[in-house]
Amino acid sequence: MTNEEIFAAIAIKTWNLAIGRLNQLLSSLTDEGLQTEVSPGRNRVYYIVGHLAAHHDRLIPLLGLGERLHPELDDIFIVNPDRTFQDEFSAANLRKALTEVNAKLTEAISALPAADLLERHTSVSEEEFAKEPLRNRLAAFEQRTAHAMFHAGQIRLVTKP
Amino acid sequence: MTNEEIFAAIAIKTWNLAIGRLNQLLSSLTDEGLQTEVSPGRNRVYYIVGHLAAHHDRLIPLLGLGERLHPELDDIFIVNPDRTFQDEFSAANLRKALTEVNAKLTEAISALPAADLLERHTSVSEEEFAKEPLRNRLAAFEQRTAHAMFHAGQIRLVTKP
Repeated sequence: MTNEEIFAAIAIKTWNLAIGRLNQLLSSLTDEGLQTEVSPGRNRVYYIVGHLAAHHDRLIPLLGLGERLHPELDDIFIVNPDRTFQDEFSAANLRKALTEVNAKLTEAISALPAADLLERHTSVSEEEFAKEPLRNRLAAFEQRTAHAMFHAGQIRLVTKP
Repeated sequence: MTNEEIFAAIAIKTWNLAIGRLNQLLSSLTDEGLQTEVSPGRNRVYYIVGHLAAHHDRLIPLLGLGERLHPELDDIFIVNPDRTFQDEFSAANLRKALTEVNAKLTEAISALPAADLLERHTSVSEEEFAKEPLRNRLAAFEQRTAHAMFHAGQIRLVTKP
């Protein structure tokens, strides 16, 4: 492996660890358990699952990896706070959406040549990117990894000790 | 910047974002506020601050960046669960330890040539590392970044909406 390939592999490994942790936590909860608030008055796990599915889905076009799978999630799980809407998605469907989106993202990003991770993401213009070369795909990907862990830490609080 | 330098810079940027988020959350809590449990029956923020300070301090020798600053934290904040000990450290001292450790780590890692991040960390042997080149400093650093965000997500639950 070249150094670039090792750098890329570590970013993907960290993502896989975060997604693995999340999956392990979620698989320990029943669909009814997903209704639990992570702390009194805070988001339900149900909401966090939809929120992560929506954000990871947005990452697909942001990283130039193809079309989104579940744009219908944004309105509820990004725009609106929890408990301000009817639960129109079943817990099973939310779990499925998160799994599908993560699988598509992981496969597409793993297939990229390492140096391509340093290309600009699609929400930064060529002019801006020339001035700020750190606004690349890798940065967006690592920030979503961190965001997934932020919420995994919350879900941990309602799983068994 | 070379590609290697950009890869390294993004890992450090993600770390800095995680530490910045953590600092922002902690600065919104008083020392008394640190006694709050992040969810009923779960760790106090006080414990999480000590836990992160201890783990980040361990990262200093693990990454070959020098001597630890606060080895006295391990027994309480890594070995023992919360509320099984007398609070012998003041909240102010724990905050200070975390700040010092993060500053030392950030400075030392930022000063490394990018490719040095791909060297083995000190808990893997040369023989093991020859077989598993991803067990490097960068991997340990990214995993601690993810771990910091895991706990930041928990602290978020007891700060103002």
